[in-house]
Amino acid sequence: MTQSNISITLNDQAKEVAADSTGAQLFADDKDIIAVTVNGSPRDLDTPLQDGDSVEPITLASDAGLAIMRHSAAHVMAQAVLQVRPEAKLGIGPAIQDGFYYDFDVDKPFTPDDLKEVEKRMKAIIKTSQPFRRRVVSEQEARAQEADQPYKLELIGLKEAQIEGDEAIEVSGGELSMYDNLDRQGQVTFTDLCRGPHLPNTRYIKAFKLLRTAAAYWRGSEKNPMLQRVYGTAWASKEDLKAYQTRLEEAAKRDHRKLGSEMDLFSFPDEIGPGLPVFHPKGAAVINAMEDYSREMHRKHGYSFVQTPHITKGHLYEISGHLQWYKDGMYPPMHLDEERDIDGNVVKQGFDYYLKPMNCPMHNLIFKSRQRSYRELPLRLFEFGTVYRYEKSGEVHGLTRVRGLTQDDSHIYCTREQMKGELTSLLRFVLKVLKDFGLNDFYLELSTKDPDKFVGSDEVWEEATSTLAQVGSESGLELVDDPGGAAFYGPKISVQARDAIGRTWQVSTIQLDFNLPERFGLEYIAADGSHQRPVMIHRALFGSIERFFAILLEHYAGAFPAWLAPVQVQAVPVADDVAPHLQSVIDRLRENMVRCELDRSDDRFGKKIRNAAKSKAPFILIAGEEDASNGAVSFRFRDGSQLNGVPVDDAIAWIGQALARRVQVNTADDFVEHTDAVKV
Amino acid sequence: MTQSNISITLNDQAKEVAADSTGAQLFADDKDIIAVTVNGSPRDLDTPLQDGDSVEPITLASDAGLAIMRHSAAHVMAQAVLQVRPEAKLGIGPAIQDGFYYDFDVDKPFTPDDLKEVEKRMKAIIKTSQPFRRRVVSEQEARAQEADQPYKLELIGLKEAQIEGDEAIEVSGGELSMYDNLDRQGQVTFTDLCRGPHLPNTRYIKAFKLLRTAAAYWRGSEKNPMLQRVYGTAWASKEDLKAYQTRLEEAAKRDHRKLGSEMDLFSFPDEIGPGLPVFHPKGAAVINAMEDYSREMHRKHGYSFVQTPHITKGHLYEISGHLQWYKDGMYPPMHLDEERDIDGNVVKQGFDYYLKPMNCPMHNLIFKSRQRSYRELPLRLFEFGTVYRYEKSGEVHGLTRVRGLTQDDSHIYCTREQMKGELTSLLRFVLKVLKDFGLNDFYLELSTKDPDKFVGSDEVWEEATSTLAQVGSESGLELVDDPGGAAFYGPKISVQARDAIGRTWQVSTIQLDFNLPERFGLEYIAADGSHQRPVMIHRALFGSIERFFAILLEHYAGAFPAWLAPVQVQAVPVADDVAPHLQSVIDRLRENMVRCELDRSDDRFGKKIRNAAKSKAPFILIAGEEDASNGAVSFRFRDGSQLNGVPVDDAIAWIGQALARRVQVNTADDFVEHTDAVKV
Repeated sequence: MTQSNISITLNDQAKEVAADSTGAQLFADDKDIIAVTVNGSPRDLDTPLQDGDSVEPITLASDAGLAIMRHSAAHVMAQAVLQVRPEAKLGIGPAIQDGFYYDFDVDKPFTPDDLKEVEKRMKAIIKTSQPFRRRVVSEQEARAQEADQPYKLELIGLKEAQIEGDEAIEVSGGELSMYDNLDRQGQVTFTDLCRGPHLPNTRYIKAFKLLRTAAAYWRGSEKNPMLQRVYGTAWASKEDLKAYQTRLEEAAKRDHRKLGSEMDLFSFPDEIGPGLPVFHPKGAAVINAMEDYSREMHRKHGYSFVQTPHITKGHLYEISGHLQWYKDGMYPPMHLDEERDIDGNVVKQGFDYYLKPMNCPMHNLIFKSRQRSYRELPLRLFEFGTVYRYEKSGEVHGLTRVRGLTQDDSHIYCTREQMKGELTSLLRFVLKVLKDFGLNDFYLELSTKDPDKFVGSDEVWEEATSTLAQVGSESGLELVDDPGGAAFYGPKISVQARDAIGRTWQVSTIQLDFNLPERFGLEYIAADGSHQRPVMIHRALFGSIERFFAILLEHYAGAFPAWLAPVQVQAVPVADDVAPHLQSVIDRLRENMVRCELDRSDDRFGKKIRNAAKSKAPFILIAGEEDASNGAVSFRFRDGSQLNGVPVDDAIAWIGQALARRVQVNTADDFVEHTDAVKV
Repeated sequence: MTQSNISITLNDQAKEVAADSTGAQLFADDKDIIAVTVNGSPRDLDTPLQDGDSVEPITLASDAGLAIMRHSAAHVMAQAVLQVRPEAKLGIGPAIQDGFYYDFDVDKPFTPDDLKEVEKRMKAIIKTSQPFRRRVVSEQEARAQEADQPYKLELIGLKEAQIEGDEAIEVSGGELSMYDNLDRQGQVTFTDLCRGPHLPNTRYIKAFKLLRTAAAYWRGSEKNPMLQRVYGTAWASKEDLKAYQTRLEEAAKRDHRKLGSEMDLFSFPDEIGPGLPVFHPKGAAVINAMEDYSREMHRKHGYSFVQTPHITKGHLYEISGHLQWYKDGMYPPMHLDEERDIDGNVVKQGFDYYLKPMNCPMHNLIFKSRQRSYRELPLRLFEFGTVYRYEKSGEVHGLTRVRGLTQDDSHIYCTREQMKGELTSLLRFVLKVLKDFGLNDFYLELSTKDPDKFVGSDEVWEEATSTLAQVGSESGLELVDDPGGAAFYGPKISVQARDAIGRTWQVSTIQLDFNLPERFGLEYIAADGSHQRPVMIHRALFGSIERFFAILLEHYAGAFPAWLAPVQVQAVPVADDVAPHLQSVIDRLRENMVRCELDRSDDRFGKKIRNAAKSKAPFILIAGEEDASNGAVSFRFRDGSQLNGVPVDDAIAWIGQALARRVQVNTADDFVEHTDAVKV
């Protein structure tokens, strides 16, 4: 090593480079590289390297590269906003999934025209290839620089312990840094308190779009001023942006809130309150079909159903610990059974009752209700348990984030020897049921111990975690690590499902628990007569029925497989005089528990067909004079294809087959493929 | 009519009798007659009759006669108690169903020995044939007489409006009366403030027994002193008393709380609180079987299932009026979504949320969620809706009086023209389902308008009431009138079921509602395009699932029909080496969703058989070596009868038949009668 050289590790290979070399120099040939990882942390490309550094390149199109580009785009947006609204005070502006936002304190909310103007100015800024220049500053310098930016001053004043989430992007504990943008003359055009890193210059923002604005409290607290948040998206190419926009449009079309209203499935009446869904007959029909199938599967797989109340004395959640570590997610208590004398003095203390946020403590009481023998294990308790969790009213979202939800909740008690076998069959069961609902693209996530926060012995964590990892890898699915992501009480494996448009949803979770069996003193009598602590597994398969219903609704864009469809058969008479014929077909189908509707409206035939299509029923049954006189019906499918003149007996039998086999029928060909149906 | 005669109506026949005649004179020949009804009110037998009175005799064994005897027995008990505990202050002492009680303020609770002593003294008093003598007194006289009886003084001071329930028996609004008991010398032995009437003398108390004591607040309020209540029963003959005691014993054996614990069906954990049942696997299995069948029946009968949350903003119950007239039955509110600034000032008002005590308002929101056409009516919304009602903790009782209950709740919206047809098919449906659960002995009760308290026009009440009466009488069941018993919002018909030991339970109710459709502004578009108000019917068939479960549990004394039994097949191997054979039979039965258990304990065979009998499983399957080698099993039934050496395929098929046909199987003969089973 010469005196002017340093040793670094580049992509895991030792290398000698000149002292004060930068990533920009190392990767000068590769214009796709826009930053570097130094010793595991992302840094600007022009960061001088030190002896011993381990360096890896970050390309623009990688996840890390996109995050940096999106963060830089947020700066450019803030610069543009200040041109349009010079009075704006800046909040924070991080990268987020698929894009970025920036919060502004402005005199009045942004209009769509404002956004257009900001976008235009952003494009102009990007074109000028403004470099991002990092400066480390003292707190005094930072305060001087941000003197007229009150929110930035507040961030500077924050102690590290107070910094959470997005704000950590703005300020890091160690040192304060500012980023300047420079124009072609080298003049500073914009400066922001920022941890970085950033792109070499604005020209690397290849494709972006501003999406929408929303109101947001400063630092997320309703006690603070309301700011205006502008959301944008940014991508490594125009094609990627276009693809993303298409996904957004597709997602909007599938938005379960929109479909829920259009298909008359559910609503959120103001009189009841936010996050508390009311399922209309058609929505409840789907929920019931989901529950019926779930019940059947659980019965066949050795689950014992139980039923527990929705309220309880707080004492139960003191035993479980929820009142210590989950109280913010719980509803306030109802104080009952206090007795007062005629003067108002309390003569008997009452009790605080709570809505249950979780079912597990009640299931533990059932386990404990009598002595348990090893012969009874594994004991798999199951309940459709409706729990209530206090979400802020502004944070509820359709059926995916609600205040009341029904978990398909199971708690499994087994011996430590049974753990492996139980987890294996459990994962297999979970995946089978998910597939029966038409989800087929999964990966697993394994959340492991946070070394700073856990209960139970290292040994049992080790055994449980390695068991979960083994069970996960034996499933043949991709297994993604989530190090330190476990709850304090045990490791977890979760099933992530990709839907029809490629979005990922966490559905099932299988969670070991070393905490509650201790807290509740759960025991069984082993074969040798000794008292042993059972292993406890929490398992939700759908997660919540409401959310899983929403996922399916979006996955299928409302066009459910026949067995799940809210309306399975929509009958449309060509004219009034054939209505009795169709009614008789429907009566027979209803005897077979098929969900049918007959259009008895005064609408013309064409309108009826269009309405039938809107109902997304898999089978539209049409009958004209000829069908009626031949004892036949005609099928029309979702794609418009038809099967005409099908004898009624066949029609009823084939529909029954499609339902029993749980197949998806969108076309005549689907129907012929999956049932005994033949093209007539 | 001579001057000294008066005209009365005796048993609907005009009659002339001497002025000041009494019932005692009229019915001197008939020693079974112990009082009279004068113009509809019960009176002492020696009440002087007035011109124009309408008189009917009351026999000792009639309901009215028994009530009078029991009330007199309460007086005798108080007299005896004062002999044993001279310090006792008297509360009230009415007749109740099958007996009587009296409340005493005593220094210490009564012991079993006290009760024996009281009983002995009562017998002595009864033997002396003490007459009951009525005196009308002024308030001043009453106060003087009861000077050392503070509770009686309080009753004297009560205004009529404050007098409710039992207390009305003690004092009537019009006049105050005292009853004296006299010994053979004509000395007063006991006096009580009392409305009467009473027996001619104590000798008419033919058979009585003291049953138990309980603590009870004076006038039912926990703000008042705690008194000691002594319960007794009294009958017109020793045989009747004996039969009643047998019924009591039978009822105690069938007590659902006792069976629930013995059969491991449910519990009420202290950690959760009183009145909030937790269903264990075996109990939930029965509940699920009940619900599954109910769901199937409702689907087949054109009900639309809905699902609504357990909590709501109070506003909903302001609209419905429940917060005005049902608030005492509701849990206290949870205040949510209030926002405060950093100084604690409220910047956004929150809302009071309530647990729902009734589902109807939420169903009305679903009706209202979009425009409704006459073509959609009748719309029958159905939900297993769990509601929470605040019962005092001391008043909850097993599963029959709980704080959380699941109603099989339906709200039916129809046109006025559809009302008759809908009520007719509804009553038919209700009775069919009740019969399917094995209840066969019914009568109906028709609750009609309280003229002082109702909403809606006379005309619509008239039509609805006469429709209900007609539907009721067309059912062929006994129809008992409950005049004035309707709720203010509409007339009601209720189904009263007699169980296996002759007790009556109110189960289903069909209630018209003229109030909520107005309050919610419910409308449909009629065929002529006009906006019309629908008729609304509330209907609960089981009533609540918890209570109906308790009724069935007591009705069957735990020995449910096979389809409802918590354990349908209990398998008992004669020795360990045949356990695998039985396990294979069980595996096949479980595939058919049969609820099975295999005794794998180390108990001896005899003990296993006794345990199997305790489980009350309809089918005990036994296998020894011979059965195992022949591919057979042996059946043992609840009465101990057997069917031996049944081939496994037959056994599985026959069990399936018994379940599908929903029959009761207690004996081998039952099994042979109701399935293809043959005696081998």
